[in-house]
Formats: sequence, C-alpha cells, structure tokens
Amino acid sequence: MIVVGLMSGTSADGVDVAIVNIRGKQHRLKVSLQHFEAVSYSPALRSRILAAAENGHVAEICHLHALLGEIFAKATLKAIAQSGLKPEQIHLLGSHGQTLHHLPKLKREAGIGPIRSTLQISDPAIIAERTGITTIADFRSRDMAAGGEGAPLAPYAHHLLFQHRSRTRLVVNLGGIANVTVLPAGSSLEHVQAFDTGPCNMLLDGVTTQLSNGKHTMDRGGRLAKPGQVDSTILRFLLSHPYLLKQPPKSTGREEFGQAYVQKLLQRAQKRRLSLSDVLATCCRFLALSISQSNNWIKQDIHEVIIGGGGIYNTSLVKELGNAFSPVPVRTMDDCGSFGKAFEAIAFAMLAYQSFHGVCANIPTVTGARHPVVLGTITPGRVKS
Amino acid sequence: MIVVGLMSGTSADGVDVAIVNIRGKQHRLKVSLQHFEAVSYSPALRSRILAAAENGHVAEICHLHALLGEIFAKATLKAIAQSGLKPEQIHLLGSHGQTLHHLPKLKREAGIGPIRSTLQISDPAIIAERTGITTIADFRSRDMAAGGEGAPLAPYAHHLLFQHRSRTRLVVNLGGIANVTVLPAGSSLEHVQAFDTGPCNMLLDGVTTQLSNGKHTMDRGGRLAKPGQVDSTILRFLLSHPYLLKQPPKSTGREEFGQAYVQKLLQRAQKRRLSLSDVLATCCRFLALSISQSNNWIKQDIHEVIIGGGGIYNTSLVKELGNAFSPVPVRTMDDCGSFGKAFEAIAFAMLAYQSFHGVCANIPTVTGARHPVVLGTITPGRVKS
Repeated sequence: MIVVGLMSGTSADGVDVAIVNIRGKQHRLKVSLQHFEAVSYSPALRSRILAAAENGHVAEICHLHALLGEIFAKATLKAIAQSGLKPEQIHLLGSHGQTLHHLPKLKREAGIGPIRSTLQISDPAIIAERTGITTIADFRSRDMAAGGEGAPLAPYAHHLLFQHRSRTRLVVNLGGIANVTVLPAGSSLEHVQAFDTGPCNMLLDGVTTQLSNGKHTMDRGGRLAKPGQVDSTILRFLLSHPYLLKQPPKSTGREEFGQAYVQKLLQRAQKRRLSLSDVLATCCRFLALSISQSNNWIKQDIHEVIIGGGGIYNTSLVKELGNAFSPVPVRTMDDCGSFGKAFEAIAFAMLAYQSFHGVCANIPTVTGARHPVVLGTITPGRVKS
Repeated sequence: MIVVGLMSGTSADGVDVAIVNIRGKQHRLKVSLQHFEAVSYSPALRSRILAAAENGHVAEICHLHALLGEIFAKATLKAIAQSGLKPEQIHLLGSHGQTLHHLPKLKREAGIGPIRSTLQISDPAIIAERTGITTIADFRSRDMAAGGEGAPLAPYAHHLLFQHRSRTRLVVNLGGIANVTVLPAGSSLEHVQAFDTGPCNMLLDGVTTQLSNGKHTMDRGGRLAKPGQVDSTILRFLLSHPYLLKQPPKSTGREEFGQAYVQKLLQRAQKRRLSLSDVLATCCRFLALSISQSNNWIKQDIHEVIIGGGGIYNTSLVKELGNAFSPVPVRTMDDCGSFGKAFEAIAFAMLAYQSFHGVCANIPTVTGARHPVVLGTITPGRVKS
C-alpha cells in the first residue's frame, strides 16, 4: 500500500507530508519512505492557530477546521505531484490534524463522571474530497475514550521501526513537546514505555519570538543559543516544574507549557538581565536535563539514544543532550534508517494503515488506556461510479 | 440491519434516539421503527451548549465535544436496554452531533480560495467506545467540501419514505429551523427540492424564555400563543428578513436567527407593549407564512403538506399552518406512517446505513453540492478479539 502521512505538531509551523510504502500484517510492518515534503504555514496562519489554541472563539475554530483541511489537501497534492505519483495511486492517508486543545486530565461532570477531551482540527472530509483518498484522522480521541491520555502515539511506530534484539534504545522526539520511548532489548509491545518529558521547541520558539520581538520565530541551528551562558537560578526555576516529577504515563501540551509559561520565565530572566542567547542556552540545558531525567522512571540501562524531530537541527540542544546522556551515545534517526525529520509523518501513515486494517495501535502501558483500540475515524475517498 | 439514529437539533434541548430496522439497497430502503426515546439535556447543559454555539472558547468546546459524546452514548445504551435489545445486536449507529457552528457562506482566504465550514461536536470515538457500535458522524462536512451548504440532509430520507406516485407532497420539518422538501409526484431523487425556510422553534423558544424570564423554555402545546393577538407591525418586520427572499438552495441557523435576532424582535415588541402571548401569536403567524411562502420557489402544485418535528405539538402553530396552506390539506407524519417525532433520528440512521454501504446520500440539487458524495466519518466499533 502507498500511504500518505500528514503531521502537524503543536509548534504549528506547518504540515509534514510523507509518502510511504507499507506492507505487512499486525505488528510487523515493512516501511519505506518514498517522498517527503515539509510545507510551512504562513506566519499569519501560524499566529491564528496559536491564538485559537490559547483562546479561540467558536467561529474562528469552525473556520480554521475547514481552512486547515484545504491546506493539508493542497500540501498532499503538491507532495504527490513532486513524487511523480498520481493521487489515484495512493491507497490511504493518515492525518494527525492540528491539535487545538488537549485536556488529558480528568474533569468530573455531575451525573456523567470523569471526562477527558481533545480537539484536533483540519477537516478530513475536505482532505478526502480534494485528494479522493480515504482519510483516517483524529487518532487521539479513541484512546482517551478508553481511559488513556491520547498521547504519545509515536512510540508504537518507534517500536515497529527501532526495536533492537540486544540493545535497549531510548527514542527521543524533539518536537514542540519532547517525548521519550524506551524500547527494552528484545522485548514486545507490552514492555514499551513512553511519555512526554516536557516542552521542547515550544519553549525555544516562544522565547526566541518574544525576546526578538518577532524578528525570529525559532533559533535556527541553535546559533542564537551557542554564545549564551547557562544561568543556574533560571535553570533551577525551570527544573522545579511539577510536571517533571510526575510519574508516567503522562502527557502535556500548550496548556501547561504555552505562552503563559514562557511569559513567567521571561519575567524572571528580565530581572536577572539575561540576553536572548543566555536564556536560550539555559533552556537548552534545561531541556537536555529534563529529557535525561527520564532515566528516573526507566528500569533498564539504556545502550543507545536515538533522537528525531525538528530539534535535531538545533546543534546547541543536541550538544547539551550528548553531555547529559554521556557516556551513552546519542544518534539521530538518520543514522538508524533514513527517516530524519519525516519520522512523525511516517508514523501517522503507519497508524492509518493499522486503523484501516482494524489493528489496534495504541500502547495501553504508554497512554494509560484500559485496553488496545483501533484509532481514528475513516472518511471514505472518492466513490468509483 | 438494526441501526441507531441520534438526532440533536439546533434547539439544543436533548438527543433523540431511534432504533430502526433497515433493509434494501441503493435508494430503495425498507425502514421500520423499533424503538424511540427522547432524552432531554439538563437546563444547565442546554445553556452551556447555546452559550458555546454563540461565543464559545476553545477549552469549553473541547470539553463539550467529549461530554456530549458521553451523553449520547448513555442515551443510546438506555434506549437499547429499554427496547429489549443488547448493544451487540446493533449493527451501526448514525450520530448527527450537536451543531456548534455552521458557516455555509463562502469566506475567501488568500492563496486558498473560498471556505465553507461547519463544526459538529459529540465525539464519535466516545460513542463507539462506550457502545461498541460502529459510529458514523459529521454528515454535513463532506457535502460542504463538495461545494454544498451541508444542509438540509433530511430531504433524502423524505424522498425515500414519503415520495408518492401521483401526489406532489411538501414535507415540512418544524425543528429549531423550519425546512421544506418538495417531492414532485412520481419523480426521482434529482427532482427533489428542499431548503430551510427560516427559523421555527428556535424563535418561539427564544421569545418564550426571554419574556418569561426563564420560567418557560418553550410554549408547550402552543398554549401561551393561543390567547394572543397578531400584531401586524411586528409581523411586517419579521416578514421583511432578507433570508426569506433568498433563492434556494439556502440554509440557515443560529448565526442568523439566534439570540441577537430574538433580542431585536423583543425590543420592537416592547415598544408596542405586546404581551408574551401576542408576540408568540405573531411569531406563529410569521412562521406559517414564511413556510407557505416557499410556494414562491416551487413550480409544482402541492397536493398535500406533511408536517413533522417538535413543532407539530404546538397547536397554535399547526392551526396557522392550516390557514396558510388552505385549501391544501396539512397532515402530520404520524398520519402518513408511524414516525412522528422520531423522524429526524430515523433519517440519520438511514444516512448512516447509506454511508456504511458507500451510497451517496446528499442531494446536490438541494444542498448545492457539485456532485453526490458519501457522507460522514466512520469510527469502528468494538474489535472482535
């Protein structure tokens, strides 16, 4: 099957399109990447999405749901054209959607009981209509309905792609949020452990945007952080966040580490008269430590760390990670296959493939769900008439 | 197949559950109602939904999406239990969802083009997880993706159930919004015409709630309207709304006839010192005229009017309709089958059945879509393991 995977992370910087060949059954899949394309949102759209995610009103949310559907469809058709394929040759599409809100914590409602909720937008009806491809979307809600946190979901793909017979691997995704997946040597799906360690690019991007007055929206290559000095007071403040001490399974998002959090950090940094570079250097140290602290929750000795996600291009962050995990080697996904930054989009192509075949692809020990479930909703492609 | 249909209209007063036997292929279905249950929302929940629909924030929308999923699931399980069936005996479920916002008018976006959008909440993942039944939801968005207004959808079911060989019928649904379906004698799907004529119970409920200071939320049986006098000045004001003159296909909702509209009406009514009964009597006359004016857009002579929806229990409204259409007879759906107020829920069971079988069930001439489409998203039920 040729499957398109669409990933758009909490950073809201764009949509990644992977075109993937998948074959196999149950939890044994062969996956190869045929084409990859990263399509950026315009700065105006990014601002709209971030504003809607923090405090959006119903009319804007309704409109963005459709608008992002159009943008995802356009990105898909562009990637298919550039790959030399035709839309009719694609069998299936998996779209993560744009997470507008994610409330994994139980909230009691009288007479009903505890509620967890999530809101993923980018209308799959529009994607299916424009591309003609059967579209699987909204992967997180079913796991939450089964008592899970709806995240993380990528560990399933980590297991299928990176599990090793004799080496215990820690897969680290450096996205808007950082998450880790522990793949114990030679073990099966039930022994996979994974959780969000805390913020990642969401923090770096927020700091960069604010302190540069919008001149930069990210610290490309980690260049701004490089000359900075780590400030130990701020570092202690960052490391004191209660989320870091919470026992897994746990997941987090913009609600906990969004603008309000960045604002709080910058107020303290201002009092200490830190430069943008100093704040970023401190954040990189913090992120590396918050990720390596995940060792506290892991029973196995790690033999190898594999990093993926947009953060791998931030050399300041990667250097800090190398120090934090030393002497355990830190490698990128590129060194262990050929996925690079396409990984998350590939993961959602794999999840779509599994849902289409009725295979459960959440890991209950990872998300906290009561049992395995088939993820997502299926929107039929073009009718053959 | 035994199919559950769930309907929750723009009035946001509750969810109707129909359990229906359906057999047949393509556009020829045999449908019989096995059980019907109307589950009311609590007044607090109704207020929350209406507030969210007018001006909801992202966190509340996210939460309500899940909360309504739980409520729909609970209503379904209750109805199934009372019918004497077991959830495992149900093959399929169709859930209209709660319309939180509906923007059928084109809104241009630079570089993307015109956007129509709709936001239906009540998470199907929760319904499917709690009931174990494969759930079809979000029926409107695909039609909109194909250039339609996403409404009305019930005319498809009107055609399948009420089309007559020798009599041209006008089916009128007296819901939150009123809509009419013209079924020309002996003609096929392409000749069905249908559109929203304007507000209905949404107006009566709004007026009643406001002027009774929340003591009543609806004019039960039309008793409050009965002693009232029609005020011709207010009637002229109501009949001057531009929506009434718009050529079909057209659809409308709370955006046009919600609280702001009721407020405007009540300001004028206050100046003329009208009582609640007078305002309601005037509204009933207005609604009857706005519905019978649909004749302006219909080429055929109508032989029979069939009314359905909650408004059929408002005797003041029904009497006005009888006068407005006279000498054409006005009958209720109950007289023409045994559907009564279950009709809309039955319709969504039928639409789910068609989507499940890959049958297109929008009527392009009615919604304005460019072509027929398979409606909705499919969320798989319990996995047999």
